[in-house]
Amino acid sequence: MTTSQRLAAEFIGTLWLVLGGCGSAVLAAAYPELGIGFVGVSLAFGLTVMTMAYAVGRISGGHFNPAVTVGLTVGGHFDRAMVLPYMGAQVIGGLTGAGLLYLIASGKPGFELGTFAANGYGAHSPGGYSMLSALVTEVVMTFMFILIILGSTHKKSPRELAGIAIGLGLTLIHLISIPVTNTSVNPARSTSQALFVGGWALSQLWLFWLAPLVGAALAGIFYKTFIDPSEIDPD
Amino acid sequence: MTTSQRLAAEFIGTLWLVLGGCGSAVLAAAYPELGIGFVGVSLAFGLTVMTMAYAVGRISGGHFNPAVTVGLTVGGHFDRAMVLPYMGAQVIGGLTGAGLLYLIASGKPGFELGTFAANGYGAHSPGGYSMLSALVTEVVMTFMFILIILGSTHKKSPRELAGIAIGLGLTLIHLISIPVTNTSVNPARSTSQALFVGGWALSQLWLFWLAPLVGAALAGIFYKTFIDPSEIDPD
Amino acid sequence: MTTSQRLAAEFIGTLWLVLGGCGSAVLAAAYPELGIGFVGVSLAFGLTVMTMAYAVGRISGGHFNPAVTVGLTVGGHFDRAMVLPYMGAQVIGGLTGAGLLYLIASGKPGFELGTFAANGYGAHSPGGYSMLSALVTEVVMTFMFILIILGSTHKKSPRELAGIAIGLGLTLIHLISIPVTNTSVNPARSTSQALFVGGWALSQLWLFWLAPLVGAALAGIFYKTFIDPSEIDPD
Amino acid sequence: MTTSQRLAAEFIGTLWLVLGGCGSAVLAAAYPELGIGFVGVSLAFGLTVMTMAYAVGRISGGHFNPAVTVGLTVGGHFDRAMVLPYMGAQVIGGLTGAGLLYLIASGKPGFELGTFAANGYGAHSPGGYSMLSALVTEVVMTFMFILIILGSTHKKSPRELAGIAIGLGLTLIHLISIPVTNTSVNPARSTSQALFVGGWALSQLWLFWLAPLVGAALAGIFYKTFIDPSEIDPD
Repeated sequence: MTTSQRLAAEFIGTLWLVLGGCGSAVLAAAYPELGIGFVGVSLAFGLTVMTMAYAVGRISGGHFNPAVTVGLTVGGHFDRAMVLPYMGAQVIGGLTGAGLLYLIASGKPGFELGTFAANGYGAHSPGGYSMLSALVTEVVMTFMFILIILGSTHKKSPRELAGIAIGLGLTLIHLISIPVTNTSVNPARSTSQALFVGGWALSQLWLFWLAPLVGAALAGIFYKTFIDPSEIDPD
Repeated sequence: MTTSQRLAAEFIGTLWLVLGGCGSAVLAAAYPELGIGFVGVSLAFGLTVMTMAYAVGRISGGHFNPAVTVGLTVGGHFDRAMVLPYMGAQVIGGLTGAGLLYLIASGKPGFELGTFAANGYGAHSPGGYSMLSALVTEVVMTFMFILIILGSTHKKSPRELAGIAIGLGLTLIHLISIPVTNTSVNPARSTSQALFVGGWALSQLWLFWLAPLVGAALAGIFYKTFIDPSEIDPD
Repeated sequence: MTTSQRLAAEFIGTLWLVLGGCGSAVLAAAYPELGIGFVGVSLAFGLTVMTMAYAVGRISGGHFNPAVTVGLTVGGHFDRAMVLPYMGAQVIGGLTGAGLLYLIASGKPGFELGTFAANGYGAHSPGGYSMLSALVTEVVMTFMFILIILGSTHKKSPRELAGIAIGLGLTLIHLISIPVTNTSVNPARSTSQALFVGGWALSQLWLFWLAPLVGAALAGIFYKTFIDPSEIDPD
Repeated sequence: MTTSQRLAAEFIGTLWLVLGGCGSAVLAAAYPELGIGFVGVSLAFGLTVMTMAYAVGRISGGHFNPAVTVGLTVGGHFDRAMVLPYMGAQVIGGLTGAGLLYLIASGKPGFELGTFAANGYGAHSPGGYSMLSALVTEVVMTFMFILIILGSTHKKSPRELAGIAIGLGLTLIHLISIPVTNTSVNPARSTSQALFVGGWALSQLWLFWLAPLVGAALAGIFYKTFIDPSEIDPD
C-alpha cells in the first residue's frame, strides 16, 4: 500500500465515524417517539468502525482514531514515523465528517447547533458527571478499547473477526459512558465537534486528547507486560 | 449460474428488502408502547440484506439495489450487459414486496395507506429536512454503502464476512438518516413505495434515483482511484 | 451421532427457543420504563436459534421447528424417516420450555396467564389483523426463513456463518410481524403456548401449523426449482 | 501461557464484565428519554464477554465467571487445579470493576448507591419474583449458558465464532431474566455488587452462588451424557 492510500483510508474512515456516530446522535437520537436513543447511537458508532474495518482496514489497519494509533505504537504494532501523518488524516477526516453533518443538519427549519455531539464534563456532561469521573471514564474506556484491538488483531487470534469485536466493543463503550462524557475515546471525534461548537467545548477539549492518549498508552504497556505471550510461549 | 437463476435471486432479495425493511416500518415501528422505532427499522433493513447475502448472494452477487449494480459496474466488478436485467428484477421484486406488504397491512381495521414507507424531502421528509439536505444525505450515504461493499468483497478481504459488514452497514445508514429522507440509498425500494403512494411520492422520486446512482458511481471511481491497491501492490 | 443425541439436541434447542423467545415477551417486553419491547423480543427469538445452532447444531442440524424440518425435507436435505421423531422432540421441547416459563412467571405476585405469548389472528392478533393477513404473513415469513436456511447452509456457502444468518433472520421476521400474529413461523412454539392458554388459542392453532408448513414446503420447492444451481453448474 | 498471564486475563475480563455490564445498568439504563433500558444493558453484558473472548480468550479460555469455570471442569474441559485460582482472579476482577464503577458513578451530583446493580429475589427482585422463580431462573439460565459454551467451543465446532455465540448468549439471558433477578448467572458479578450494597444484597448472595454453580454443573453432566458424541462418533 502507498502512504497516500493509507492516509486516504484513515481520512474516509474517520469521516464516516464522525458523520455516522455523531450524525446518528444529532439527527436521530431524540426524534419524537421513534428516536434511536443512546442504544441507537451506540450501535451507530460501533458500526462505523466495523464497516470501515472491513472496507479499508486492510489498507491502513483501520485506526480512525489518534488514540488507537498511539496505543498500537506503544504496543509495538505500528511504525512511529507514520503516527503524525495518521493523526493528521484522522483529524481532517473527522472535521470533514462534521462539516457534512452540519450541512445536512442545518437543512432542518429551526436548526440550532446547540451542543452538536460535543464531549464534555461537569456542567457539560450529559448527566452532570464531574471532571474526575470524566477523566477516569475516558482513560479506562480507551484502555479497554485498545486492549480489545491488540488482542483481537493478534496474529494468533482469528483476525478476520477483529472488525466485529472492535466495532461492537466501541458500541459497548458508548452503551456505558454516553451519560458521563457523551463518550469520546477518540480525540479526532472530539475535535471535530468542538471546533464547530467553540467556547466551552474547545476549553474542555484537552481532556479528550489527554485521557484517551494516556489510556491507550497504558493499554499498550499492559498488554505487552501482562497479556501478550508471543515472546514467552512460541507454540 | 444461469441468468434466470441470477435474476430470480435479485427478485427475491429485493422483495425481501422491501417487505422486511418497509414492512417493519409500516407494521411495527409505531406500535403503542412496544413498537420497534427507528432502531428496529434500521436493524430490519440491514438484516434483509444480510440474510439474503447468505441465502442467495453466491448466485447473483446479492445487489438487491440498482445503485449497487451501478456502483459495482463503475468500480469494474460487474458486467455491463447485466445492468439493465438486474435493475428490472430489482424493481419488480421491490414492487412485489410492496404488494405483499399492502396485502398484509390492509388487513388491519381502519388501515390507511398514508405515506406507506415512501422516501421524501422538504415537507415530506420525516424531520422536515430540505431538498439539499436530502440530496447530500442520499449521495453520501450511498457513496459509503458502495465503499463498504467494494472493500469488504475485495478478493483480499475476508469475503465470507462481507454479508455482515454490508448488512449492518445498511443498518447504520438507516440509524443516521431516517429522519432526513426516510432513507433510500436504493431506487428500487423508493419506487416500490412511491407507486403505491402516488402524488408527491412520485414527483419526488427523481431524487431517490439520481442521488443514489450518483453516490454509487462516485464511490466506484473513488475506490478505484484512491483505495484499491490491487494493481499497485500485487503482494 | 445417535438418534437419541439428535433428538436430545432438538428437544433442548426448542425448549430454549420457547423459554427464551416467549420468555422475553412474557417477562421483559412490557416492564415499566425499561422494558425490551418488540425489538428485544425479536432479538431474543433470533438469539435462541443462533446460540443453539452453535451449541448443538452439528448434532441435529439445528431445526428446533417442525416447519424447518419439513422445508429441509422438501428441499431434499433431510431424511424423511426422521421427520416425525424430530417433530415430536420439538413439540415436547417447546412444551417443556413453556412449563419452565410458567413456573418462573407465576412467581410474580398478581400473575395472570393472560395471552401468555400465544399466536393469534383477528381479535387475537396484537394489532387486530385479519385472518387473511395472518395467513399471508405466516406463509411468506416461513417461506423466507426456509430460503435463508437452505441458502446459508448450502455446501458452497460459508456454512460456519449460517447460524448467524439464520438466527438474525428469525430476529428480522419478528421485527416485521409481531404486530400481525405475534409471529410464529414455528408450530412447536405456537403449540407450546396454546396448550397453556387454551380456548381461542387452541381454536386458532390450525393456522400456525398450516401456514408455516405450507410456506416451508413452498420454499423447498422454490429453492430447488429457481435458485439452487448445484446440479446445473457443478463448477 | 504462564499462570500469571492466565490470571491477568481472567482479572481484566471480569473487571470489564462488571464495569461494562453493571456500569451500563447504573449509568445509562434509566437516563431520561434516551436511556438504554434493559435492551441496552443486555447488549452491554453480552458484549463485555464477546470483546474479552477475542481480546484475551486465547490466553485464559475466557471464563470471567466462576460458574463457567465449574461447568467446564465438570464437563471435562478444564484442569481442576486451576479452579480456585481462576475463581479468585474473577472475584477480585469483579470487585475492581465495581470499584471503578463506584468512582465514576459517585461523580454525579446527588448520587446515591441505591441497589447499584445487585441481584435479588422476592422484595429485591426488579419485578418482585419469588425466591423459587429466582432459583429456577438462575439454574436454568446458567445451564443454558454453559451448554452454549461447551457446544460452541467443541473441537468440531467453528470455534473462532464461539465468542459471538457465547457473548450474544449472555445478551439473550439478560433479555429474558433481568426482571426476575436482575440476572446473575455469574457469582463474581453478584459478589462485586453485593459487597458495595451490603445488607439484603449480602444476605441474598448465597442464591447467586448456589444456583449458577448448580446449573453449570448440571450442564456439564448433561452435555457429556446426552449431547457430546466425541467418544461415540469419532468421524
